Amino acid sequence: MLAAVARGQRLAVEELPEPVLDSGDALVAVRACGICGSDLHALRHGSNMKAMMEATGQPSRFDPDRGYVMGHEYAVEVLELGPDTAGVPVKPGELVVSMPAALGPSGIEPIGYSNSYGGGYAERMRVTAGMCLKVPDGLDARRAALTEPMAVGRHAVNKSRVKSGESALVLGCGPIGLAVIASLTSLGVEPIIAADFSPRRRALAALLGAHEVVDPASEPAIDVWRRVDGGRHPLVMFEAVGVPGMLEAVMRDAPPQTRVLVVGVCMEADRIQPMMGIVKELELVFAFGYDPLEFQGTLEAIADGTLTVDPLITGVVGVEGVPAAFDALADPEDHVKILVEPGGPAVPAAV
Amino acid sequence: MLAAVARGQRLAVEELPEPVLDSGDALVAVRACGICGSDLHALRHGSNMKAMMEATGQPSRFDPDRGYVMGHEYAVEVLELGPDTAGVPVKPGELVVSMPAALGPSGIEPIGYSNSYGGGYAERMRVTAGMCLKVPDGLDARRAALTEPMAVGRHAVNKSRVKSGESALVLGCGPIGLAVIASLTSLGVEPIIAADFSPRRRALAALLGAHEVVDPASEPAIDVWRRVDGGRHPLVMFEAVGVPGMLEAVMRDAPPQTRVLVVGVCMEADRIQPMMGIVKELELVFAFGYDPLEFQGTLEAIADGTLTVDPLITGVVGVEGVPAAFDALADPEDHVKILVEPGGPAVPAAV
Repeated sequence: MLAAVARGQRLAVEELPEPVLDSGDALVAVRACGICGSDLHALRHGSNMKAMMEATGQPSRFDPDRGYVMGHEYAVEVLELGPDTAGVPVKPGELVVSMPAALGPSGIEPIGYSNSYGGGYAERMRVTAGMCLKVPDGLDARRAALTEPMAVGRHAVNKSRVKSGESALVLGCGPIGLAVIASLTSLGVEPIIAADFSPRRRALAALLGAHEVVDPASEPAIDVWRRVDGGRHPLVMFEAVGVPGMLEAVMRDAPPQTRVLVVGVCMEADRIQPMMGIVKELELVFAFGYDPLEFQGTLEAIADGTLTVDPLITGVVGVEGVPAAFDALADPEDHVKILVEPGGPAVPAAV
Repeated sequence: MLAAVARGQRLAVEELPEPVLDSGDALVAVRACGICGSDLHALRHGSNMKAMMEATGQPSRFDPDRGYVMGHEYAVEVLELGPDTAGVPVKPGELVVSMPAALGPSGIEPIGYSNSYGGGYAERMRVTAGMCLKVPDGLDARRAALTEPMAVGRHAVNKSRVKSGESALVLGCGPIGLAVIASLTSLGVEPIIAADFSPRRRALAALLGAHEVVDPASEPAIDVWRRVDGGRHPLVMFEAVGVPGMLEAVMRDAPPQTRVLVVGVCMEADRIQPMMGIVKELELVFAFGYDPLEFQGTLEAIADGTLTVDPLITGVVGVEGVPAAFDALADPEDHVKILVEPGGPAVPAAV
């Protein structure tokens, strides 16, 4: 089968053997799989990422140099249930999604960052059947594939404890920032101010419910919040950029008592002024992933229309076009979320 | 009157004119005033501190080079009520404490970091009469003077949202770390692990209720927590050291989902690895000061014995001995809290 394989810092489109099912696995055909910014990071900083994950005390067998298939935002069709899958909640022919974690023979494997469980940049893959959720009728594979990144936004918003009567400032309108905005909108948070250098992403932020968008090159985002909100509503900030210097700037700009959700993944060391945090009593809350209930709730919210995802889907590409799609995602004007659809176009096409 | 005056980075004992009362002021005689680590910081980094406070958007008229009297942990006797003090809750002859904030003609002034409202390293001072709380009968000035630093610990513990069934690791057993331990003890948090290089401070931590004390030079504090608690209780960490490198180490050592209360005041820029925060979903909660209810609650808890303060009081000194007391506090084996008592010894004496 065709797959885009990461080897060290390069992506290669290759013919791979079909997945072999272990106990509890389902064989699935990829219908749509989003390309995540973390994958672009991982390709560049794979060994760094592995070192970090090991430093958390969860030793990983993952070897980025040995070749692996990324893709953890998938909507897939069940082709076949493997051994020991009696009683699983899905059956062949159904469109399903799952959290990208496989319960393998030697523990939990992160699908897409594993040498044994390949992700969705391929024609087929294997997932743990018991982890699958049937996509509600009427929801197509493209929207369903947005469950994973939208769950990340929902989780960050949940962790922020933001409530009605508070305001939000979202710095960075990449996929995660936009997912945060969509989730804030679904909660009725107002005003939501969104900042990004890219006009296209600002337009998307507005489509997803931001009440005011800012180009930080022309006006500091915090000034726009002051002007629009006037400090009437306590502020929750979302740092969704993840480059060195952002945390220091956020801590400098934040009003006293602000909760700062750190959702941008900065892979490098960064410098802060702890005194700023102290005198303003800031809270830096780092958010990552989601829990099963958040994942399921996100799928349901997309299905019932509470959570808007259409504007995020900007392109599709076949498996052979994954390397070109990685390149295209470097330009924020070009795309937000490109979906890999096996059999799709050889170069990223707008949808 | 005699006062220890900070001028730039030096302390000088001088004869100052008596305080002149403004509207709302009370003239008070200092009975006991604790020397706070922040004062040692401020003397060394006064202009840095002023710059930081201004960066928070609260422009300060404070000029550390113009001369000022520190001392914001005071228990004082009311000598005389000034103009416009009808209805205040205290009267001459009473022992009182107050939050170190004066409502001056041009707004709130931080007593002890102000050129117009001197602090307690002096024979007499003026405070806002309406802010004073009468010290409950039976509580002496020495213990009452501990209200302020103990309120800092209580506030940090409140902000941590620590609850029964969780465990705590306190890094640094200076006055703030010890105040945190006393407050955790009063809540029944168990186990409390406390780390400090100083044998004396470890002994004090144990006296105040720490269930296990650690010399981080011989065993990493987190390993002791793992050994003692075995991960049975979710962990809340208190960083009460405040030197560069501590935050990075705490983020490296913290188990996933840990709340880290940052109570150590690090005046310099510091480096962190944001990715550590992300993958472990840490919360860095910066804590500073307390609110009026926490201050009052602390006074009451000291008076009724819920909060133990005696072990913290290690020395007394007269006003003329303040510079020597600042020097003595550089050695953690020597003292924890030295109280300034006008009329007391010319050099710090153990109590």
